[in-house]
Amino acid sequence: MKRHKILMSTPTELSDRTMGAMARQVMARTDPEFLALYRQTTEKLQRIMHTRRDVVIMHGEAILGLEAALFCLMEEGTQCLVLISGSFGDGNLDWVQMYGGQPVEVRVPYNAAIDPADVERALRANPGIKLMFVVHCETLSGTLNPVRELCTLASQYGVVSVVDSVTGVGSVEARVDEWHMDVCCAGSQKCFNAPPGLALLSVSDAAWEMMRKRKRPVRWSYMSLLDWKESWLDKGVFPYTPSMTDVYGLSAALDQVLEEGIDDVLARHSYTARVCRAGMRGMGLELWPASDAIAAASATVARVPEGIDGPALVRRMDEGYGVIAQTGPKALRDQSLLGLSHMGRSADPMRIVVGLAALEKSLSDLGFGNRLGSGVGAALEAM
Amino acid sequence: MKRHKILMSTPTELSDRTMGAMARQVMARTDPEFLALYRQTTEKLQRIMHTRRDVVIMHGEAILGLEAALFCLMEEGTQCLVLISGSFGDGNLDWVQMYGGQPVEVRVPYNAAIDPADVERALRANPGIKLMFVVHCETLSGTLNPVRELCTLASQYGVVSVVDSVTGVGSVEARVDEWHMDVCCAGSQKCFNAPPGLALLSVSDAAWEMMRKRKRPVRWSYMSLLDWKESWLDKGVFPYTPSMTDVYGLSAALDQVLEEGIDDVLARHSYTARVCRAGMRGMGLELWPASDAIAAASATVARVPEGIDGPALVRRMDEGYGVIAQTGPKALRDQSLLGLSHMGRSADPMRIVVGLAALEKSLSDLGFGNRLGSGVGAALEAM
Amino acid sequence: MKRHKILMSTPTELSDRTMGAMARQVMARTDPEFLALYRQTTEKLQRIMHTRRDVVIMHGEAILGLEAALFCLMEEGTQCLVLISGSFGDGNLDWVQMYGGQPVEVRVPYNAAIDPADVERALRANPGIKLMFVVHCETLSGTLNPVRELCTLASQYGVVSVVDSVTGVGSVEARVDEWHMDVCCAGSQKCFNAPPGLALLSVSDAAWEMMRKRKRPVRWSYMSLLDWKESWLDKGVFPYTPSMTDVYGLSAALDQVLEEGIDDVLARHSYTARVCRAGMRGMGLELWPASDAIAAASATVARVPEGIDGPALVRRMDEGYGVIAQTGPKALRDQSLLGLSHMGRSADPMRIVVGLAALEKSLSDLGFGNRLGSGVGAALEAM
Amino acid sequence: MKRHKILMSTPTELSDRTMGAMARQVMARTDPEFLALYRQTTEKLQRIMHTRRDVVIMHGEAILGLEAALFCLMEEGTQCLVLISGSFGDGNLDWVQMYGGQPVEVRVPYNAAIDPADVERALRANPGIKLMFVVHCETLSGTLNPVRELCTLASQYGVVSVVDSVTGVGSVEARVDEWHMDVCCAGSQKCFNAPPGLALLSVSDAAWEMMRKRKRPVRWSYMSLLDWKESWLDKGVFPYTPSMTDVYGLSAALDQVLEEGIDDVLARHSYTARVCRAGMRGMGLELWPASDAIAAASATVARVPEGIDGPALVRRMDEGYGVIAQTGPKALRDQSLLGLSHMGRSADPMRIVVGLAALEKSLSDLGFGNRLGSGVGAALEAM
Repeated sequence: MKRHKILMSTPTELSDRTMGAMARQVMARTDPEFLALYRQTTEKLQRIMHTRRDVVIMHGEAILGLEAALFCLMEEGTQCLVLISGSFGDGNLDWVQMYGGQPVEVRVPYNAAIDPADVERALRANPGIKLMFVVHCETLSGTLNPVRELCTLASQYGVVSVVDSVTGVGSVEARVDEWHMDVCCAGSQKCFNAPPGLALLSVSDAAWEMMRKRKRPVRWSYMSLLDWKESWLDKGVFPYTPSMTDVYGLSAALDQVLEEGIDDVLARHSYTARVCRAGMRGMGLELWPASDAIAAASATVARVPEGIDGPALVRRMDEGYGVIAQTGPKALRDQSLLGLSHMGRSADPMRIVVGLAALEKSLSDLGFGNRLGSGVGAALEAM
Repeated sequence: MKRHKILMSTPTELSDRTMGAMARQVMARTDPEFLALYRQTTEKLQRIMHTRRDVVIMHGEAILGLEAALFCLMEEGTQCLVLISGSFGDGNLDWVQMYGGQPVEVRVPYNAAIDPADVERALRANPGIKLMFVVHCETLSGTLNPVRELCTLASQYGVVSVVDSVTGVGSVEARVDEWHMDVCCAGSQKCFNAPPGLALLSVSDAAWEMMRKRKRPVRWSYMSLLDWKESWLDKGVFPYTPSMTDVYGLSAALDQVLEEGIDDVLARHSYTARVCRAGMRGMGLELWPASDAIAAASATVARVPEGIDGPALVRRMDEGYGVIAQTGPKALRDQSLLGLSHMGRSADPMRIVVGLAALEKSLSDLGFGNRLGSGVGAALEAM
Repeated sequence: MKRHKILMSTPTELSDRTMGAMARQVMARTDPEFLALYRQTTEKLQRIMHTRRDVVIMHGEAILGLEAALFCLMEEGTQCLVLISGSFGDGNLDWVQMYGGQPVEVRVPYNAAIDPADVERALRANPGIKLMFVVHCETLSGTLNPVRELCTLASQYGVVSVVDSVTGVGSVEARVDEWHMDVCCAGSQKCFNAPPGLALLSVSDAAWEMMRKRKRPVRWSYMSLLDWKESWLDKGVFPYTPSMTDVYGLSAALDQVLEEGIDDVLARHSYTARVCRAGMRGMGLELWPASDAIAAASATVARVPEGIDGPALVRRMDEGYGVIAQTGPKALRDQSLLGLSHMGRSADPMRIVVGLAALEKSLSDLGFGNRLGSGVGAALEAM
Repeated sequence: MKRHKILMSTPTELSDRTMGAMARQVMARTDPEFLALYRQTTEKLQRIMHTRRDVVIMHGEAILGLEAALFCLMEEGTQCLVLISGSFGDGNLDWVQMYGGQPVEVRVPYNAAIDPADVERALRANPGIKLMFVVHCETLSGTLNPVRELCTLASQYGVVSVVDSVTGVGSVEARVDEWHMDVCCAGSQKCFNAPPGLALLSVSDAAWEMMRKRKRPVRWSYMSLLDWKESWLDKGVFPYTPSMTDVYGLSAALDQVLEEGIDDVLARHSYTARVCRAGMRGMGLELWPASDAIAAASATVARVPEGIDGPALVRRMDEGYGVIAQTGPKALRDQSLLGLSHMGRSADPMRIVVGLAALEKSLSDLGFGNRLGSGVGAALEAM
């Protein structure tokens, strides 16, 4: 049967308004109309990220922003504190090693959150640390790290912090200036419902300073944040032609976030997450995060029950009911995870109903023995 | 909380592909590219309606097509058989009277279907009958009439039949030529997921003949079907500029119907209707149609339980959960009805899950005393 | 060679912003968001038409609006003053006759404008006249009628005026209230650059009164203006589902008119018309209107020079250079006309340059003997 | 006066069909429908580039592709032949130096083309050369280099060639396999009328080999071509979420190229360039390229006449007539250049007419003393 696929993983679906905004003609990159639209777009980001600092849009997937931050800030031999509570944290570690940095690790299990006390110990023990990498929301595990405390600590120790908040900003509070996040990277195609293809970064003066003080500052490169600072922010000239259509889409998507109101958007995410947790528990599943207190607002992750094959469950949801669920981190060999992501427009309880229905029906199809309707019923109860 | 509205009434939602097709530049109405696209569009309609007869697209809502058929075929004093099993049937009666026709009624209650035996009796008793009006699917009641038998009968008595199949074609079988439907009117914004604004009619030779034999044939008018026959079909010249954007949308929407396959589309509608009936019964509702055999495939209608206020229920579903349900015919004073329509892309069991969840939660909110999850559970059971 | 067609006839091209606005999801016709958008759209029309009277959008091509006005206002035997200065005027005459009205004609040649003195004579001579039909801009002839004087006169004689301003409003001044236009019909796909499929009418109290006083007022019909008055304007309920996508398009297109400013839009049309006339004269053509004073701002029409075949010239412009020019009225047998329309976004001197270039090159191809560049040169001179 | 801007520089305008294709919902990056569309898109590129080699789409502006090729192929100390006939060639030199390569230069003036004999001499004199960088079309100078001869030579000397054909492919012949181009980089937003944001590269086995043989091959980076080879091309898994909307746009734009036919597209470019040269000469300008034989098909560049201020001329064309012309390379201090680019859909003689009209009128406004119409007239003559 022909099905309209329902994404409960990423990228998140665009609204018709955003799609309509992207059906727009390109312009000269010097066109005053485009320059104004571009500036307004970064101003909207500043409001959403609670920052008055520079915001840079890089023209590639979110991962370009994270790599560029590391590439521009770190040098051969820089001592870096890497906080690891999930697969993205482990990825940061790989990158630091690849680019020749000296990593200091703070690590917890994939279902837990980093403890600021551990970080303080590490900072005290390693006064040479210059940079700290932390993941705000470990999407695949459905967990959050206490970014506020972690970045404040880093700042107290004079350490520049780089925060991967790709699925954080827009689903949970993220106050860049107050929380002392030096570089904070948000993602267009996650909680903002904008198209993939843009990396969104706030950059503090301390971070610009560190980039400029590198032996050979990264300039005139697709990976250069400084080019955007010195060419676009300082002189209003683009280093190259931006991905215009994606910028149109981002701009329209941010309007929708701001019209709804940032606080209301966050409340909607957290409410939806609560309903989703109730539904998953209602059908007899055990949630993965060690506690609800560290559960993400952008994705809810459960353990695949013993006796059920994780990949088969995901496949069944897709092929049988058109719902694309989120799989767990590959590194977790002994425990299969399954998530329903609820970012942006998907952070809607009635949409969660669809995900839960597909999940409980698929579990039943694979012999889990659950009573049909118990998941959705519990979710409706929680509304 | 900001909600994305979910339409379980009409018009039905457009696919992104259809919307994209409508973001197209207009052309001269003599442009060969437009002429070809227009012709292909009517050919697609012919395939879907199983007809080799003329198909005319009128440039207004479906109701223009129905009125135009009556206006062009009927004269002052023409004897018309009007079959009434719901509110649209009653509307036809009003029209026949307004335009000066002489109606002969065959009427059954709003939860029943016309019996061909009654029609045969009426035809035999009134040999002066020239026209028959019948509604294929009475959407607001969720019932079907046996159009095949009824039109075949009319044809045997030399009576020209006009079928309102606005929510029929595309959800249930409708074989224009085999079933002897002289004029069959389908709707763009119902089972085809095309935009509102176009009326789609097949016209038999007998119907053209009857239009031409009128004392003063209707020509050079927005209501004239003959203009389309004599100008567009015969000479390839449009009587006026067509609603191009809507034609682009219809063309793209029909492609999607044909790519899926007409039979598969119908099967999807009937499967969804079955799941929806199971879900409604599962939460303790009584269905409105006298039997499942006459239940529509495009909308499922139930009685609002005693003690529950119909309009309040519809409002609750909308305001509380973002689901726009279908209300019943106004003529039914003593019984409030509520429907979930599942036409076109909405004919998807997972979408029905959303409608059912909103319905059972709203019933519970209004004190119906149902167990949450029982409706969705029964629907999942039926999948 | 593959060519992007350039329309210098109608419909006029949509802007990318308008197309993007049309790539929007449909809504329930009771959705408050849609109701608000619809109301705002008519308010925009009121501003553009300088009226505080009711504005009705009918859901069909402009011609539906004109026919509906006549159908709803006139009865069998009503005496109507029909002003004829071109092919649309002659069309009005045919309609009055078809629907059983009693026409009184005032007629001038197709290259002239109606003289108010003639109208006053006719009104005085025929005190039974109840209705007056007049065409503001005879597009195919490129001429204007003095609507202000004509409607003021009618109003002094207690005659209800119906103005076809389909290519007038938006290109030249049209002040509905001050000028006493009882019904004024504008077109979406002309000077507004909106999609075809909507007829836009202002209606005075006198006109509503006349419709209601008919022996059998037209109600419950696709042609009924009263339905829109009594259902939509009075109660906020649509008589049937509107052509939503077209309304989205119209709304966006009107925003663009208002953002530019109505007066600036008119000035742009008149400037472009002046440049176009200079260019046509520059290449040796004779303009068709008797004087520049009555020349339209929406289309410039010239005589096809002797020895050149009109249809061949139009074909050459299309096939050789991708420009779709406007042909003249069919009734003019002994004189072939050719027009360049410049409505809405096409009212741009640089676009006229393209039309002129195609025209002078095509004339040269067909042996007219003109010096290439003389047309465009004269137009540039006039800028 | 409100003007619709006409781009005669880049990016090139999208067709309505391409914009409509971009108003499409995003999908999971594992969705079979997206995977198929992505594969078909690279196959279309292979056909257009006349190659059976791997084609990689990188998700950033064209410049990302060029930098990535250099970053992945070159190491500290690699000897590189850099051919310089314009500003992009000079940019390549800067990059080679920045990334620690050892450049060998072959240089000609900015209005000339590289002579293969000079290249052969350089290759013979420097047997250590491993890489050659060459620009196919120097857009800002409007000149072409003989890529066929140059790459064939490189291949004979075992040197891997990297060709910047960003404005070459799609406007002039570019046969990757026959001409031995190891890495050929095309641009989406130039001759293909696709949106900016994608870099399109063909990669030969020799180039892959060279990347893998690097001391530390570039992997797991946004700049890594090998990631795309090893993850996407070999396993069908994307290294990160692609810029979906841009891919939709590219795919639709390439369909339009292929439906027209590659040879016809090239013929249209070369015809338009010829017409543009005639028009520029007709108004008294001197073309910049040393000969028509090396004149680009994608942009025509002339010297700004003595006494006329280049930037003022460009500004006048924009502000007075809405035409955005192309400026010359900044390095040319003593000679100001002005270009009209005619890539993709702009490669249309009637569009050139607009550019020429704006140019001759602006020259006249600035006191050049040309006769208005002489440029357009000469262009029409040349059609």
